[in-house]
Amino acid sequence: MDDYLEQILHLIKDKGYARAVDISKNLGISQASVTNMLQRLDAEGLVKHEKYRGTVLTDEGQRIALAIIERHETLTRFLRLFGIDEETIYHDVEGMEHHVSRPTLNVIRAVADALEADPELLERVRKEGRLSADPG
Amino acid sequence: MDDYLEQILHLIKDKGYARAVDISKNLGISQASVTNMLQRLDAEGLVKHEKYRGTVLTDEGQRIALAIIERHETLTRFLRLFGIDEETIYHDVEGMEHHVSRPTLNVIRAVADALEADPELLERVRKEGRLSADPG
Ligand SMILES: [Mn+2]
Ligand SMILES: [Mn+2]
Repeated sequence: MDDYLEQILHLIKDKGYARAVDISKNLGISQASVTNMLQRLDAEGLVKHEKYRGTVLTDEGQRIALAIIERHETLTRFLRLFGIDEETIYHDVEGMEHHVSRPTLNVIRAVADALEADPELLERVRKEGRLSADPG
Repeated sequence: MDDYLEQILHLIKDKGYARAVDISKNLGISQASVTNMLQRLDAEGLVKHEKYRGTVLTDEGQRIALAIIERHETLTRFLRLFGIDEETIYHDVEGMEHHVSRPTLNVIRAVADALEADPELLERVRKEGRLSADPG
């Protein structure tokens, strides 16, 4: 469900609307499954269908989608500090983001903030952990 | 599969052997499913059944189980630095650990090491992130 809301918000931001065919393509899921899930999200009050516009998020749906994207971006920002390759980061984040509670997300954000604000500290952590500074 | 190997290793460490009934109880999964999974793990060469001892891990099974437990412990150690309550930590770790690649685990270990070695730094990260020092 998270992945759908995330994708719908991305599509709305990019194109102004979210069509089942684009959600299906981006998630690699059949259009029938997408239609099914959209009905479920509609029943839960998270999306609605608007004539001529397609699927849009309700306020509640938008709130949840923004939280999902925030988790994704915070986890990505943290891991990018250490030169992990983008593919591994994306894969780990897509899995981890569904299991990160608000307190854990706050911890990761605080650590990322501290490391970004202090390049010497970051360099020290990288060195002591034998982590590369650059991808590869 | 990870959860089974993790549980089997825990049981062997605690009791010297792993019985299907205990795995079933600890994972909250039916004994039929456990028996099924044990057959699959056996076919993959990760566990074997020994007369009078029950299920034991092969060398390869033990190697994987130790890596799983290392992930669990490193993630837990990191989150414990910030006063997140134990229930939330356990829940997040049980979900996240299946999605943490080796490079990401190395990052989390390095950050946990740096924070443990430098209580002032830890205190600063806690303060700036408005994280509590104690559970609750
Ligand atoms: Mn995501
Ligand atoms: Mn675990």
